[in-house]
Amino acid sequence: MIPSAPKVSEVITVLSGGVGAARLLRALSGEIEPREISAIVNVGDDLVMHGLTICPDLDTISYTLAGLNNDQLGWGLAGETWRVMDELAGLGGAAWFRLGDRDLATHLYRSQRLSEGATKTDVTRELCEHWGVEITLLPVTNDEIATVFDTEIGVLSFQEYFVRHHHGVVVKGVSVHGVTECSPTHEVISALEKSTRIVIAPSNPLISIDPILQVPGVSEILRERRDDVIAVSPIVNGAALKGPADRLLIELGHEATCEGVAAFYQGIIGTFVIDEVDARHAANIESRGIKVRVTTTIMAEPENARRLARAVLA
Amino acid sequence: MIPSAPKVSEVITVLSGGVGAARLLRALSGEIEPREISAIVNVGDDLVMHGLTICPDLDTISYTLAGLNNDQLGWGLAGETWRVMDELAGLGGAAWFRLGDRDLATHLYRSQRLSEGATKTDVTRELCEHWGVEITLLPVTNDEIATVFDTEIGVLSFQEYFVRHHHGVVVKGVSVHGVTECSPTHEVISALEKSTRIVIAPSNPLISIDPILQVPGVSEILRERRDDVIAVSPIVNGAALKGPADRLLIELGHEATCEGVAAFYQGIIGTFVIDEVDARHAANIESRGIKVRVTTTIMAEPENARRLARAVLA
Repeated sequence: MIPSAPKVSEVITVLSGGVGAARLLRALSGEIEPREISAIVNVGDDLVMHGLTICPDLDTISYTLAGLNNDQLGWGLAGETWRVMDELAGLGGAAWFRLGDRDLATHLYRSQRLSEGATKTDVTRELCEHWGVEITLLPVTNDEIATVFDTEIGVLSFQEYFVRHHHGVVVKGVSVHGVTECSPTHEVISALEKSTRIVIAPSNPLISIDPILQVPGVSEILRERRDDVIAVSPIVNGAALKGPADRLLIELGHEATCEGVAAFYQGIIGTFVIDEVDARHAANIESRGIKVRVTTTIMAEPENARRLARAVLA
Repeated sequence: MIPSAPKVSEVITVLSGGVGAARLLRALSGEIEPREISAIVNVGDDLVMHGLTICPDLDTISYTLAGLNNDQLGWGLAGETWRVMDELAGLGGAAWFRLGDRDLATHLYRSQRLSEGATKTDVTRELCEHWGVEITLLPVTNDEIATVFDTEIGVLSFQEYFVRHHHGVVVKGVSVHGVTECSPTHEVISALEKSTRIVIAPSNPLISIDPILQVPGVSEILRERRDDVIAVSPIVNGAALKGPADRLLIELGHEATCEGVAAFYQGIIGTFVIDEVDARHAANIESRGIKVRVTTTIMAEPENARRLARAVLA
């Protein structure tokens, strides 16, 4: 065990996808006042299904930070039951996107509040207050954007690609519908401007982080503040720890290495954190004008997560 | 026990609200081929809540005819559980309109199909096929209409009045938003035209039947076919068997008797079925040019329900 250090006085903002970001945020909140951490969260994989507005990345993060996450499944809520989905499957309804009974309550709550005129930002704040989540979660935009996949079997929505087809089809292109016309929230811009440090979580660069970067204004701020921007590689030893990042990088013309990710972020990051097993890539990355930190980036063990958080804050 | 009679050869259409209509339809399907029965169902109390499109009268009827109805509660599905609602209440969400887990599957199914471009008529047919319901259930319109209550505490939606306030506030007026601009479905018009008999179920005349009658074209057909139209009184001995019909009749300037209901239907019905305890009203109703049949109208016992069905078909 590494002994607890006094909390660092920083104001940081973390560009976030789902699981990897949730774990990094949880680790960071052990090192720095959680109230000084904001997460700007991808909403490109949000969807409306069965009439319900579902925000997978926001929910993954809030459930994890609230300690409600289902560790066995790796997604959703602990103690989940499946009564509604089982009935829906019995009716012949679309039950491939599994929504547990507890999880459904979140979506019902959100959908009702949105219909009453609340924004996603409002609803996220309400849910986080309810669950005692101290980190500020900010959907990057309150407007509707949608990441879609041009694949070998046609155009698929995010969840069709990810869940229905288990990210098992070849992708020819990814685009984010609506992103050029959307606006970042003023909370997002303010968080980016006031932070002493901006972190890019080890989320999928192409489908979790890029939709955030494409929101008008966001990448411009990162570019200006490049020296304060630090990214964590989601690729370790040429493979994604979770999800299809490695495969997608190759399919979309990148290298499925930490260096490929660094190249993708070139111009908007000043520092890149890579795993010890990838130390050999450090020189090449540095030759791109990016500082490199080498540490454990796999957060399965709490100690490793803490070590990574400290490396990010160093 | 009354012995089973050979099934009558008729094609009938029943203007229907919820519980009372469901019971009459169930009884009628014992006397006549269910495939020769259509129910034109009120959708004025349909609502969108939590993003879900909910059709209380359609669901009450289909659940009852499928034998899935919850007899203990008097509404909803048998074997129901409440996981989602309990969680939603825990989140501080609007949980006064209780939606069980099984019931929610119906609403998720419907909402998804509507978002895919299906009509309420399509979805109702799909659900009824799934449940083996042989009576044809027809929402009176696929357009959105909404019955609203002008009350002593302000304007309330149907379910706010009915469920949230337990129909316990004084009503000054009822109106059906959107009804003058809506269209009946062609299935509805066709059912009314081809039927040998049109029945008005013992549903609330003011808030279940009147929204159907206000749909352009419906009351015109009934008026023309008046001699083939038979209504069953929902008022017995001056009281509604269920719900606020008696109270609403008085608040809206009618008499809370079977005669008051007959007067309300005058011009569109040829025959009125009243309960034995109301036999004294027969002469007054007949003086309005309406034939009267006197029988048991309370359907709690299957034998009585059967007797009522036979009186309707006599």
